[in-house]
Amino acid sequence: MLAFKVLAQDGSARLGRLTTAHGVIETPAFMPVGTAATVKAMTPEGVAATGARILLGNTYHLMLRPTAERIAALGGLHKFMNWPHAILTDSGGFQVMSLAGLRTMSEDGVAFRSHLDGSRHLLTPERSIDIQRLLGADITMALDECTPFPAERDAVERSMELSMRWAERSRRAFVEREGHGIFGIVQGGVHADLRARSARRVVEIGFDGHAIGGLAIGEGQATTFAMVEATVPFLPAEKPRYLMGVGKPADLVGAVKRGVDMFDCVLPTRSGRTAQAFTRQGTLNLRNARHADDPAPLDTECRCPACTGFSRAYLHHLVKAGEILASMLLTAHNLTYYADLMAAMREAISAGRLAEFEAP
Amino acid sequence: MLAFKVLAQDGSARLGRLTTAHGVIETPAFMPVGTAATVKAMTPEGVAATGARILLGNTYHLMLRPTAERIAALGGLHKFMNWPHAILTDSGGFQVMSLAGLRTMSEDGVAFRSHLDGSRHLLTPERSIDIQRLLGADITMALDECTPFPAERDAVERSMELSMRWAERSRRAFVEREGHGIFGIVQGGVHADLRARSARRVVEIGFDGHAIGGLAIGEGQATTFAMVEATVPFLPAEKPRYLMGVGKPADLVGAVKRGVDMFDCVLPTRSGRTAQAFTRQGTLNLRNARHADDPAPLDTECRCPACTGFSRAYLHHLVKAGEILASMLLTAHNLTYYADLMAAMREAISAGRLAEFEAP
Repeated sequence: MLAFKVLAQDGSARLGRLTTAHGVIETPAFMPVGTAATVKAMTPEGVAATGARILLGNTYHLMLRPTAERIAALGGLHKFMNWPHAILTDSGGFQVMSLAGLRTMSEDGVAFRSHLDGSRHLLTPERSIDIQRLLGADITMALDECTPFPAERDAVERSMELSMRWAERSRRAFVEREGHGIFGIVQGGVHADLRARSARRVVEIGFDGHAIGGLAIGEGQATTFAMVEATVPFLPAEKPRYLMGVGKPADLVGAVKRGVDMFDCVLPTRSGRTAQAFTRQGTLNLRNARHADDPAPLDTECRCPACTGFSRAYLHHLVKAGEILASMLLTAHNLTYYADLMAAMREAISAGRLAEFEAP
Repeated sequence: MLAFKVLAQDGSARLGRLTTAHGVIETPAFMPVGTAATVKAMTPEGVAATGARILLGNTYHLMLRPTAERIAALGGLHKFMNWPHAILTDSGGFQVMSLAGLRTMSEDGVAFRSHLDGSRHLLTPERSIDIQRLLGADITMALDECTPFPAERDAVERSMELSMRWAERSRRAFVEREGHGIFGIVQGGVHADLRARSARRVVEIGFDGHAIGGLAIGEGQATTFAMVEATVPFLPAEKPRYLMGVGKPADLVGAVKRGVDMFDCVLPTRSGRTAQAFTRQGTLNLRNARHADDPAPLDTECRCPACTGFSRAYLHHLVKAGEILASMLLTAHNLTYYADLMAAMREAISAGRLAEFEAP
């Protein structure tokens, strides 16, 4: 059981408060990705300092290394990675499809070989839910099949129907604990009617929150937004809504305006390791020689350690020299930018001014 | 001018206080290496939190990238890297010999090609001192030739004599500023008489402190200590003594007992990036599978972020997964270990109990 309260509404957008076993999350919220029990190039204190109060952990990576059983024996994922706030884990399904070798899909689940050592594994809805319980996730995700894009409508429909049967099995396998919950995932590709059917089915099964999956995989922002619009009307207002794997700042703003409460994406962290910085004046590539003599910070309005301590010239130097500190500072900056963007949207919803809000 | 005060003595060891334009350094002190204007995998705040109050910057790296002129235009190295405490810069000579291509030695200096882009440079005593002034070093090092080991006595003698002529030119080129000083460097290989001759010459020239160079390059600890013993008696008590490039914990203890006040070495930082941790129970290799299930911290007596927040099992996992956080935490730990080792030696000197002190 997870408590979720909608505190204010502005158009379709909502200001909310999600209470978990590991603290309260103000929504709309962005979840930094902590794939292998670490947000890359960040200490947990550094992540919390950006404002984040919930992370995403990847079941696929953790089940292979160090294994869910080992993390459980060490006291769970929160203790293992020293993160006292909330954790949402994905089901592992998406990364089995993108990373694992020799996959075999069946009604039961997906058999695959580890990309690390070739070892054989079987991921079923029951196994995925059990792994997430062993990890100690505050929010567990149902196992689904992320339908590839593009795909024939027939294939999308069959895939969605399989995901719905897996959603039921996932729900049944979930062990209720106070402050812990499970989210179901709506699939249906880029077909509004399949999205609607999937959403009705997921709601019927009964979850603590609802995710919109299978998007942001190449269909383009307009289609992503169209699918959000085709789905949200079927989702109950009193439960949180999570758009998986999204996205760029403008994607977040558009999705919040359409009623989404939660997001995750590797963009701010991955960009931080490839010299990209999100700023209120647009995106900067710190590898660019034009920054070599620039004494200005990345973003004069930013409160992060990179902006309060260092010049663009210094960050450019670190990037050119291949220094780890470049990844550390740019990741901290980008996560702060994302956290501040979400905070600004929450403020705008509160003030009833989200309509005119744009990604800075 | 640098103020140095010997506060207590215990055998040959001294407790001292060195006052620079960027703060006071309690000696014996260990200087973390910040090669390219960053201590690798650490924020400046993180470095200061270990207890370090002086860093070493590498002239060779900085003159090539981002260049001394650029750092000067940006306000100097302290501001550039956001390090408010003291900085000692080396002369560049050592790394020209180990990293640069196509070197040509002459009486004037050393001509070389950059290992980064093949560009041609000339490093003379005057140029080295000017670069260190542009960087804003609190402590400037005279340019010397680090004599290779092993080498014929004749070659060692000729090399030492060249270093002495360069020491004179370095001293003349140094611009006096309050809180800033220049150290001369004693050479002479593994020959006690050459060390003595070099020490007398360096002292005669007149520096703010004295370094013992050209050691810890393969001659072995016993010889290093013998050369320290052959040099220290010729160095005035009222000036700080710096043993360059040293070393392992036991090397530091032995050298402090022989009258050395300052050290630098890449060992704690480089080890941190290769999964090695110094602890009070010996050195650990975190890559080793025996740590995979160990809930204990690296070192139960350590106050660092790695030891207060994480288990050996977690650090092992980070190392195996190739995560940047492994380098961050292990570097913070090793620098804390070194800082605490120096603090413990200062306490032992103060209490007159250094004789029984051993590296933990």
